[in-house]
Amino acid sequence: MDKPVIGFIGTGVMGKGMIRNLIKGGYSVNIYNRTKEKALDLVDDGARWFDTISSCTQASDVVVTMVGYPKDVKDVYFKDGILNHAKKGSYVIDMTTSSPALAEDIYNDASSRGIHALDAPVSGGDIGAQKGTLSIMIGGEKSAFDKLKPIFEAMGENIVYQGKAGSGQHTKMCNQITIASNMMGVCEALAYAKRAGLNEEQVLKSITSGAAGSWSLSNLAPRMLEGDFKPGFYVKHFIKDMTIALETAKEMGLMTPGLESAKKLYEELAENGEENSGTQVLYKSYL
Amino acid sequence: MDKPVIGFIGTGVMGKGMIRNLIKGGYSVNIYNRTKEKALDLVDDGARWFDTISSCTQASDVVVTMVGYPKDVKDVYFKDGILNHAKKGSYVIDMTTSSPALAEDIYNDASSRGIHALDAPVSGGDIGAQKGTLSIMIGGEKSAFDKLKPIFEAMGENIVYQGKAGSGQHTKMCNQITIASNMMGVCEALAYAKRAGLNEEQVLKSITSGAAGSWSLSNLAPRMLEGDFKPGFYVKHFIKDMTIALETAKEMGLMTPGLESAKKLYEELAENGEENSGTQVLYKSYL
Repeated sequence: MDKPVIGFIGTGVMGKGMIRNLIKGGYSVNIYNRTKEKALDLVDDGARWFDTISSCTQASDVVVTMVGYPKDVKDVYFKDGILNHAKKGSYVIDMTTSSPALAEDIYNDASSRGIHALDAPVSGGDIGAQKGTLSIMIGGEKSAFDKLKPIFEAMGENIVYQGKAGSGQHTKMCNQITIASNMMGVCEALAYAKRAGLNEEQVLKSITSGAAGSWSLSNLAPRMLEGDFKPGFYVKHFIKDMTIALETAKEMGLMTPGLESAKKLYEELAENGEENSGTQVLYKSYL
Repeated sequence: MDKPVIGFIGTGVMGKGMIRNLIKGGYSVNIYNRTKEKALDLVDDGARWFDTISSCTQASDVVVTMVGYPKDVKDVYFKDGILNHAKKGSYVIDMTTSSPALAEDIYNDASSRGIHALDAPVSGGDIGAQKGTLSIMIGGEKSAFDKLKPIFEAMGENIVYQGKAGSGQHTKMCNQITIASNMMGVCEALAYAKRAGLNEEQVLKSITSGAAGSWSLSNLAPRMLEGDFKPGFYVKHFIKDMTIALETAKEMGLMTPGLESAKKLYEELAENGEENSGTQVLYKSYL
């Protein structure tokens, strides 16, 4: 199968970058989005608009979904019928960060219809989506992954097959779990520095390059100090991810005190109107 | 003042590397250590042994201390008399990770005697001490720092003056606070991966280079997976640091839930006999 026609459901800030890279990679891309107006610039770029998920699916060999919440994933696959309308032998890939259990449900339902399903959440944010440098973590059948690898390579750089259905989502949960606690550490250190009357920028010079170093410390701590809480990654989406991670951890009998504390702090921030801020707003919890 | 004679109190694994770099830098180094046998190889390298702290101090222009706990710092400066025996106009530098309040006490006592005191804890571990690549965070009078800068440069690479007395220790606390929560995140992610039946090495391939990335994830997570809990940095010393950080944070009215959780987990490990393991042993808390 070379150059299959791709249907892409969900043309948000992430989807847009990914679709443009697919077009750049020579793929024909069919698109659908809940709000049509937000997708029209992609038509100028060469994508083909469809008015329904079912028609978009029927016209495609590979359907990619990049929507918001697990509920949206459920809707587009089951209620709105991707699985009802996908061609036998075709492929569906959910790239939304969503629940591992739901990824398994989709896989099982798809398999029973002769459809190949992969879960393939990403990290790297809107900039990674634009530049095609995403990290993509894939679960599902290895043979399906092998066939679709060129598609992933058109959208990302660090493409890793993680195992059976749900493993991509589980891996993304590992990513978010790591970030959750680290964000507390970064914020607690900066808040401590402030209370102690230190010059926080000088403190960062001492601690960023050593054993305390992290992506968040290098990239988000400076924004915290500047009072720049614009979203790179939204609080509301991080809460969604942490909720899935925490529920899944509990189901597996795993205690995660760091994740639990971080989730609580973020939920308090969301209650205080910060759900559309970037995750670096956690700093405010400590001020 | 060029090439002052340096007295170095405490020839443990950190002190040894630092002393050798001072000798390599052309300094005459007087040494004292609680256990003489552990210091004798330094005499072969050119250091001069003294049987008491007082005699070592009297023979030196700059006294550096690198001991274990705040109690030891207190003992060598007050009880064993560095401050009683240091020459007027001389310099004392505590490079132990210790309490900011104690650093201020030493500074005040030293100042009243015409002695210049700096607090200058380090990060970078025994390997950084050997290679002379330590990060050194300095508090005290700027003029004293400026005079002693060549000495710091002989031992480290990232030399940052952080402000008045105690600021070096406060900065080190920021470093340890950042690490504490991040260690939970790393361990929780690996434990989650294990429970979910993922291949943890593959998971690291997906998450290490992105927004979840950190020094600990790159350097300690692989050791956790190999079951290698040998100390790079001892659990007992990390608990010491977290205890100081947490007490100081509380005195400043700062809540640090991440630090608190991490400290608790490490204390449980120490109670279970892991105080001499490396900090990566935190992984065991989640198994």
